[in-house]
Amino acid sequence: MNYKAVVNVLSRILLLEAILMVFPIIVDLIYKEGQWLYFLLPAGCLLVISIPTILFLKPKNTILQAREGFVITSLAWVLMSIIGAIPFAISGEIPSYIDALFESVSGFTTTGASILKDVEVLSHSMLFWRSFMHWIGGMGILVFVLAFLPTQDGSSIHILRAESTGPNVGKLVSKMKFTARILYAIYAALTVACFIFLVAGKMPVFDAICNAVGTAGTGGFAVWNTSIAHYNSTYFEMVIAVFMLLFGINFNVYYLILIGKFTEILKMEEVRVYFIIIVLFTLLIALDIMSLYENFGQAIRYSFFQVNTIISTTGYSTADFNSWPIFSKILLFLLMIIGSCAGSTAGGFKISRVIILTKSSYTDMRKMLHPRQVIKTKLDGDILSEDTIRNTKTYLVAYVGIIVLSLLLISIEGYGGLETNLSAVVACFNNIGPGFDLVGATGNYAGYSIFSKLILSLDMLAGRLELFPLLLLFTPSTWKKI
Amino acid sequence: MNYKAVVNVLSRILLLEAILMVFPIIVDLIYKEGQWLYFLLPAGCLLVISIPTILFLKPKNTILQAREGFVITSLAWVLMSIIGAIPFAISGEIPSYIDALFESVSGFTTTGASILKDVEVLSHSMLFWRSFMHWIGGMGILVFVLAFLPTQDGSSIHILRAESTGPNVGKLVSKMKFTARILYAIYAALTVACFIFLVAGKMPVFDAICNAVGTAGTGGFAVWNTSIAHYNSTYFEMVIAVFMLLFGINFNVYYLILIGKFTEILKMEEVRVYFIIIVLFTLLIALDIMSLYENFGQAIRYSFFQVNTIISTTGYSTADFNSWPIFSKILLFLLMIIGSCAGSTAGGFKISRVIILTKSSYTDMRKMLHPRQVIKTKLDGDILSEDTIRNTKTYLVAYVGIIVLSLLLISIEGYGGLETNLSAVVACFNNIGPGFDLVGATGNYAGYSIFSKLILSLDMLAGRLELFPLLLLFTPSTWKKI
Repeated sequence: MNYKAVVNVLSRILLLEAILMVFPIIVDLIYKEGQWLYFLLPAGCLLVISIPTILFLKPKNTILQAREGFVITSLAWVLMSIIGAIPFAISGEIPSYIDALFESVSGFTTTGASILKDVEVLSHSMLFWRSFMHWIGGMGILVFVLAFLPTQDGSSIHILRAESTGPNVGKLVSKMKFTARILYAIYAALTVACFIFLVAGKMPVFDAICNAVGTAGTGGFAVWNTSIAHYNSTYFEMVIAVFMLLFGINFNVYYLILIGKFTEILKMEEVRVYFIIIVLFTLLIALDIMSLYENFGQAIRYSFFQVNTIISTTGYSTADFNSWPIFSKILLFLLMIIGSCAGSTAGGFKISRVIILTKSSYTDMRKMLHPRQVIKTKLDGDILSEDTIRNTKTYLVAYVGIIVLSLLLISIEGYGGLETNLSAVVACFNNIGPGFDLVGATGNYAGYSIFSKLILSLDMLAGRLELFPLLLLFTPSTWKKI
Repeated sequence: MNYKAVVNVLSRILLLEAILMVFPIIVDLIYKEGQWLYFLLPAGCLLVISIPTILFLKPKNTILQAREGFVITSLAWVLMSIIGAIPFAISGEIPSYIDALFESVSGFTTTGASILKDVEVLSHSMLFWRSFMHWIGGMGILVFVLAFLPTQDGSSIHILRAESTGPNVGKLVSKMKFTARILYAIYAALTVACFIFLVAGKMPVFDAICNAVGTAGTGGFAVWNTSIAHYNSTYFEMVIAVFMLLFGINFNVYYLILIGKFTEILKMEEVRVYFIIIVLFTLLIALDIMSLYENFGQAIRYSFFQVNTIISTTGYSTADFNSWPIFSKILLFLLMIIGSCAGSTAGGFKISRVIILTKSSYTDMRKMLHPRQVIKTKLDGDILSEDTIRNTKTYLVAYVGIIVLSLLLISIEGYGGLETNLSAVVACFNNIGPGFDLVGATGNYAGYSIFSKLILSLDMLAGRLELFPLLLLFTPSTWKKI
């Protein structure tokens, strides 16, 4: 383990967090709520610690291997969350530090699960910081560092690989710094577009900013207790629903649009399946909940929003879907697990993995019938390597394993039933936010013990980092000298 | 597809079922309840159809390929169930044929899920037939055919492979007919032992027979509405719990005991893990439910029985575990999925598969850290082949896929909540019987629609046949000519 290089990169990340805390300070100065000190204090400490470390602790060897990449990624997210929670706690707006940590992890991992029973009592700077965390976490903290901070030449590909979502990093990553900048430019442009659409519909500017960054990061922290239902506006709901949909698409698509390669987009099976799922599930749920609403149009309105908020793993709400019929709930439960496209800001198992597993299993079944034939699995017209298939299956094993283990651990205390606890784990692990029953759209995570909140926080991190970086932290050979 | 050979083997199986129907006829003649005709009629029809087919439709080519093996296995179980349901339906004891079919599938697949609200009104012959189905299905219908009916020389290994439980057929199968006979001899001896222990404790002979065959097949149909709780006897509970445990062990163990190779048994990781799970889960549940019972001893009594009835996928009950705390319920839910050892009469995902998946995933994670090292996964001291690992992972994919799809389908009608429907699917698919909530130990499956009952019946068959034979029935290339 190249400890010096790891510490160096982590220090850069902490420096970045200190700089980002300037934004809530500005918000506080505008609203004059006197909370700026609670951001300035941790930011100041970070500067004092990180700058000397970056300047004086220079690693001789700047090459990062796979191990270092995983360790940096996991620790970066853990440290960001631990520090991000400080303003909530020392301001007293979230008195318990564990609660503040849960909220902070939920923010950076773009989960949007909350322990707050009433968010409307928070000051503007805290509300903004909550939502801004989504934006920071959405595209990835380390991608940002790669894009805009001076980095060593080392094989930083391992960092990008560890933090990016989906089964493989894709074609974008040939030139690291360039790629990272393009991704952030697309991300920022889409966020601004969302903001403009919301303001054009006369949403207050503060709300529009928070909702735009929360949508972009597919996070879901709202500034009102009733979330997006507060505005009771079909226009806002449709704008947010469409942008949630857009942020759930593989960002390669926007890059391909930029360079004019439209035919390449049509080849992407994952994107096609994403749209098919959205249309199909919206219709099925609308038919199922029709009797609860005035007409089919209203049913579509609520169904379309709900499908997009869940598939994009955002978690905003406009309806109490907990009271919907069981068929709709199971469909939403399924969407929670599937999630969006790889290479998007969204969480979940990812559609490409579902496609790879389905196709390769069908291939395996055909092989059982015809043992002597050579049958290959293809995706987007290319043959999938045995490695990709094996890794995707291993991902499923780890995914199921983590859900089962977490469910067991959070059930020890005896809070909640199967529906509450299973959906809590699934909603945190897939970075959605609200689940069913006690943790549903009208509920929250306040009722869990400290232990369960920590388990759920780890689930959020494991989900955002796609399991392995975090799991490897607990693997002895990560820390062994070779 | 070698249709003639398929029809020939299937006819032998129907002939066997006709012969087996003699037993409930004898029961009826003893109790003089006048139901014998309802068995004699279908049995007679079977004889009329099957004997001429066996005699006159002789296949020229008796070699069975993998495809034929899968098709024979699936169709055999479907046909056995369809015919086995007839006595229930034509006697009027289960008026709806779909309900009778559900009960029959549940019997042969050793599930023990029932649509009956009151089993005590059934005549003795029907009660016996229900439990006897467990015994027939437990060791496998086709294994029986292989063992005792004259068969062609063809590669009948494919049949045994398709019907046996677990990731690989194991070392027993070198000499087919010999192996099948040994398996049945062990099975019969253990059943008789269970019967003797029950009768020795003064259980009525009829009850002892039904409970012994139900335990042997790890089925779970009881002759009283309150199942084993009816007897309120710690002795009976312990006898049945221990025998459930014994029938959940890989039958290779008994074979190795017979031939005196005790050291071989110690090498079997699956069996070790099986015992560890039973001890650990019994203790954890006992601690969790202690406050509900008089003392720790009572808690152990109910916990030990419940752990064994679930891990062996039998489904007898002595306590309403639906009212136990959530932690215990999650532990039981987990046991439902894990199931017992491969090569036993029990259902479930199988412990050996859990071990293979855990170990190979850990290997994969270590490979991520050290891409250049060669790391292999071992089981019982031997290196696992990539094929076995891949097939086990594919099994998990299909397993999860079937649960998700079934859950969706049975939720369309809007009956039950997440807990009821998820546990119904898991309990049927893993051949357990009772689930939670509406389908819990004090509930039943009567509330579902015909459609959902058929889906759950397919789940029972898919679970008993370990997915692929049944899935392949729906794969077009199974039926294609090469």
